[in-house]
Amino acid sequence: MSRVFVPALLAAILCGSSARADEGMWLLNQPPRKLLEERYKFTVEPAWLERVQKASIRFNNGGSGSFVSPDGLIVTNHHIGADALQKLGSKDRNLYRDGYYAPTRDQELKCPDLELNVLQSIDDVTPAVQAAVTPGMTPAQALAARRAVIARIEKEAQAASGLRCDVVTLYHGGLYHLYRYQKYTDVRLVMAPEHDIAFFGGDADNFEYPRYDLDVCFFRAYANGKPVKTENYLPWSATGPKEGDLVFVSGHPGTTNRLETLARLEHRRDHVLPSTLQRLRFLEALLLQFSERDPEYARMAKGDLFRVANGRKALSGQYQGLLDPAILKAKAKIEQQVRGPFEANLARDRSSPWKLIAGVQRQYAEFERLHDLLERGDAFESRLFRIARHLVRLADELPKDDAQRLPEYRSAGIESLKFQLFSPAPIPAALERVKLAGSLSFLAENLGGAHPLVVKVLAGKGPAARAADLVNGSRLADPQVRRRLFDDGKKSVATSTDAMIQLARLIDDEARKLRTRHAELQETERQAYAAISKALFDSYGTSVPPDATFTLRLAFGVVKGYDEDGKKIPFTTTIGGAFERADRQENRAPFALPKRWLDGKDKLDLATPFNFVSTADTIGGNSGSPVLNRQGELVGINFDRNRHGLVRNFVYTEVQARHVSVHCLAVLEALRKLYDAGPLVKELLH
Amino acid sequence: MSRVFVPALLAAILCGSSARADEGMWLLNQPPRKLLEERYKFTVEPAWLERVQKASIRFNNGGSGSFVSPDGLIVTNHHIGADALQKLGSKDRNLYRDGYYAPTRDQELKCPDLELNVLQSIDDVTPAVQAAVTPGMTPAQALAARRAVIARIEKEAQAASGLRCDVVTLYHGGLYHLYRYQKYTDVRLVMAPEHDIAFFGGDADNFEYPRYDLDVCFFRAYANGKPVKTENYLPWSATGPKEGDLVFVSGHPGTTNRLETLARLEHRRDHVLPSTLQRLRFLEALLLQFSERDPEYARMAKGDLFRVANGRKALSGQYQGLLDPAILKAKAKIEQQVRGPFEANLARDRSSPWKLIAGVQRQYAEFERLHDLLERGDAFESRLFRIARHLVRLADELPKDDAQRLPEYRSAGIESLKFQLFSPAPIPAALERVKLAGSLSFLAENLGGAHPLVVKVLAGKGPAARAADLVNGSRLADPQVRRRLFDDGKKSVATSTDAMIQLARLIDDEARKLRTRHAELQETERQAYAAISKALFDSYGTSVPPDATFTLRLAFGVVKGYDEDGKKIPFTTTIGGAFERADRQENRAPFALPKRWLDGKDKLDLATPFNFVSTADTIGGNSGSPVLNRQGELVGINFDRNRHGLVRNFVYTEVQARHVSVHCLAVLEALRKLYDAGPLVKELLH
Repeated sequence: MSRVFVPALLAAILCGSSARADEGMWLLNQPPRKLLEERYKFTVEPAWLERVQKASIRFNNGGSGSFVSPDGLIVTNHHIGADALQKLGSKDRNLYRDGYYAPTRDQELKCPDLELNVLQSIDDVTPAVQAAVTPGMTPAQALAARRAVIARIEKEAQAASGLRCDVVTLYHGGLYHLYRYQKYTDVRLVMAPEHDIAFFGGDADNFEYPRYDLDVCFFRAYANGKPVKTENYLPWSATGPKEGDLVFVSGHPGTTNRLETLARLEHRRDHVLPSTLQRLRFLEALLLQFSERDPEYARMAKGDLFRVANGRKALSGQYQGLLDPAILKAKAKIEQQVRGPFEANLARDRSSPWKLIAGVQRQYAEFERLHDLLERGDAFESRLFRIARHLVRLADELPKDDAQRLPEYRSAGIESLKFQLFSPAPIPAALERVKLAGSLSFLAENLGGAHPLVVKVLAGKGPAARAADLVNGSRLADPQVRRRLFDDGKKSVATSTDAMIQLARLIDDEARKLRTRHAELQETERQAYAAISKALFDSYGTSVPPDATFTLRLAFGVVKGYDEDGKKIPFTTTIGGAFERADRQENRAPFALPKRWLDGKDKLDLATPFNFVSTADTIGGNSGSPVLNRQGELVGINFDRNRHGLVRNFVYTEVQARHVSVHCLAVLEALRKLYDAGPLVKELLH
Repeated sequence: MSRVFVPALLAAILCGSSARADEGMWLLNQPPRKLLEERYKFTVEPAWLERVQKASIRFNNGGSGSFVSPDGLIVTNHHIGADALQKLGSKDRNLYRDGYYAPTRDQELKCPDLELNVLQSIDDVTPAVQAAVTPGMTPAQALAARRAVIARIEKEAQAASGLRCDVVTLYHGGLYHLYRYQKYTDVRLVMAPEHDIAFFGGDADNFEYPRYDLDVCFFRAYANGKPVKTENYLPWSATGPKEGDLVFVSGHPGTTNRLETLARLEHRRDHVLPSTLQRLRFLEALLLQFSERDPEYARMAKGDLFRVANGRKALSGQYQGLLDPAILKAKAKIEQQVRGPFEANLARDRSSPWKLIAGVQRQYAEFERLHDLLERGDAFESRLFRIARHLVRLADELPKDDAQRLPEYRSAGIESLKFQLFSPAPIPAALERVKLAGSLSFLAENLGGAHPLVVKVLAGKGPAARAADLVNGSRLADPQVRRRLFDDGKKSVATSTDAMIQLARLIDDEARKLRTRHAELQETERQAYAAISKALFDSYGTSVPPDATFTLRLAFGVVKGYDEDGKKIPFTTTIGGAFERADRQENRAPFALPKRWLDGKDKLDLATPFNFVSTADTIGGNSGSPVLNRQGELVGINFDRNRHGLVRNFVYTEVQARHVSVHCLAVLEALRKLYDAGPLVKELLH
């Protein structure tokens, strides 16, 4: 990580041309046609692009997937299906650990609260959104104006189309696009392998390569009780990629920070990441200790534990990147190329947007930790608490005009929110108690035991006793109770004696104040980024794609290996390699292969490719994305990056950085030889 | 933990009598004769006391033990022997995990750097030490004067006796006693069971009860190449304790904070504990992740991992105690009983010692984190770094007069220091690199990436690259290299190109400044505590024992069970219980019994008592302490407290709090039936 990177933006700026490397998470309405034509002689045909777009699926719990049959069959990662697997499981049925296969449709299991979105169309609404904010408005006025216009656009679009409609902020405020989604809420589990092969190598191998993971999971979308019929699906490749092949990744990268200013990145380095890492370590320790106490506790905590450990490892990699002087030096150089001329020509009475953003960071630093504890909820790690807060706020917000509501309660999103809120998924009390006790303690660690807020929240108890009172004193684990409170609205919530509702009420004024302060600063940032983006567009057009926003993007790259510590790392691993690695690690967790694999070894063609890498530009949220060849066939399922790719939040590099995918042939081999899943293979290869 | 405690000191103060509960870690020269006589009709005979004292052993790596045969045989905990087991192990011989038994003396394995101390005599040197500090001295002058007088006393005593001599500060500055120790540095491993039965239940069951741990380890002390002969050993009881029996614990409790002021406890709650917990969680995560990567890494990191996880759990319990309003309320009440009258009678021109101490805490808060990072070494988790710092400082300190040296370099302790410094124990480079990289990153997390110190220490690299440079650029893993640098002294160290020596030099000025500032504040605190102690002694004599100081203490208590959540917890568990617990936990780690135990189950009398509890007052450092009956026979080996005992740092309670011991009969049963250790059993029962 001490190499000096030449990121695409730097290249673009220094060479005055468009990106040279395979960088870019491109908007579907602004695909890199010229680049692909010039570099790979690939023409983006409209029909190809439309099929890719409408076959790509957003998993609202934070991942991607795709349709792989005309009957609504979907493939994603096991670790994206994990939340559903966990919620479908019980003490006597550990689906997450043991896997599942439904040979017939009637054995497919309906997920309690999984919502999928499929992008149908995009419109640029930038002029309307930017026109709402006029010079001279205070940040509070600007925020209200922008919220109002976005609420109106979404509501009208939804009414007109019947689709889920979201206005997406791009370039941190440079562009606003309206996305319309087809929504699926009847999603059923078809097949999942065992956790131990889906996540073979566990945390140790996470963000590493070579890998040997069958990180796949199959679902099926239903509508009106029948499997969804679609023309837009990706045929399963019968061969897979060769070294040097051009491939595409179509998915939903979550967040990148490549267009953020240096001051913002320094704030990430010195505030956001240290405090987030501290929190993740505390949560990970807590969950590990809880899991060790009992096998059933381990089952309950497995999903949280993966999420937290994965985040900790990804953010540690980002933090290391920001501590690498080479990276921030490169960012400083890039920034100066745009900032220098801009500030030189700036009218005397105008502020530099870079300085504005730096000023905002200093203000964040004053209260961000308190904001995160109270408003983001770091102090209240509990599903019951999150439900309680929604109920308290819904009672306040729903009577308001759409334009005045907090964004998450606007009409456009309310159905999706209710789908989550009334989910029948179980909420294990033991896990709730231990997480809440831990996070109340974390609150005190951060603010000090005598802080008025700590005293108020703990209410004269220690954290463990207080958490027990709150969880035992709440009936919100019952979805009927939630629904009644929701239906009864303000009065019922205001007088509720439910302990968790009372906690949410107790801190709501203060939490809302922090949120307002935070949102107004964000509004100031957005306006500053709008000015910076304009300067960028004036010079470079849209040759620099926007930062990731968990919306659909198209990336491309080449399947190829790389060198590490003087060794060649081939572009693909084999199924046989998994057995060798398990042997070397004495078959102990997390390198213990499932019994089915150990017993079935002789049936397998060990030379079958297992995982492979390409240079395409991905980030967290891309998990489960289909990897396509020129023909638009699915050749792999993206599930990870290697550690060299952990700095991709800030800079793209392809010297060693790769994303990692499950090879299409490994899936077929395992389904056929080990999982006895003939019907599924037949559907994939129909 | 939400019960209101009636600690002994409160009882003593409120009732005007001596402690009522079984509280107290008593000085061997001030045993609770009257208490034992009145409450248990037990007379402390001088011969009994002398034998207990001289059979009790301090393990300088942080634990306790005792002689159990006339031929220098020693019993302690497996987790106290762990450091030696780890250092004696190698890639091909995992003694820590697999255990060891030497049926003959020539198979006993010499530990590379284990030093044992046995207390021979105590003298009160309070008048001499306190006379050295005169009114009107600045803290710096007082500190120098006190250091000088202590150095002189230790040096003279050592010259006169040939023994290791330490002046011990009691009552945080109220008394000063001179302790003379017989020292043993040729210590050999005799027997250790497998880690999985020594620490059955692992972190999950640590600080819990019921327990099923064979947490024992046998060593033998040698002198001049022959086993040490001693009359002062503890006969192994052939029956063990019954419920209600009076027992004694003779060992080396490390630290308690019961006599600290409220302001100091609040400082612990709001500064010391949160920052220490944050550091321990970071280290634990790092070590767990390192261990997962490779079985050999797991072996390397095992010792560190236990130490860190154990500390994290103990300190979490302390932190929870300080967040419990009942405990601090009780402390406030106690404090006011002494402080109220004292301050009421205080001359106008004198400061209240309680206020002085509160002021010192505020000053600590300003720089303590930086002090801990730089001077305590939190930023440089590396054995090589600690060696480098010693070499750099020894070169500076040894030429000075004894009275001017930093305390750890005074002549009285120099031989023990050299024994550690030149230890041939291996220092695994992979572990060094990962710990150092992590702690350099931790430094940046705490201070920010642009802090001058971070920039200086990282020297233009990221943490991982810098750590690799430092470890790879140091030859200090070779004890010969260390010895040469030590022998050559100042000039050689000052010009050394060893990367780790250079790092230690780079930060030494700043680290020393922080240390001086810290030590002068401690001196102010000591004087304030001297005044408080005087008030305490005037009213209550020595009926309140001093806080623990990792010196020999005698505790007493009663063997008895307790109630928890409406259930009776019996005073003892059985060997059969271990098998039941393993079954319920699906025999998965940390509840996996060793193969020897699973295979040998039928040979065992499952009704044999395994672990037992008593009310005696113990704390960390007491691990390995012998538990004795009235006759002075060893009935158990203390190894833990239950979680109710975690608040004992601050208050003694015996409602549910218990210390946990291995039963003497469990040891005999396992040695006989499973470990084929006839000669060892014979020596114990000779």
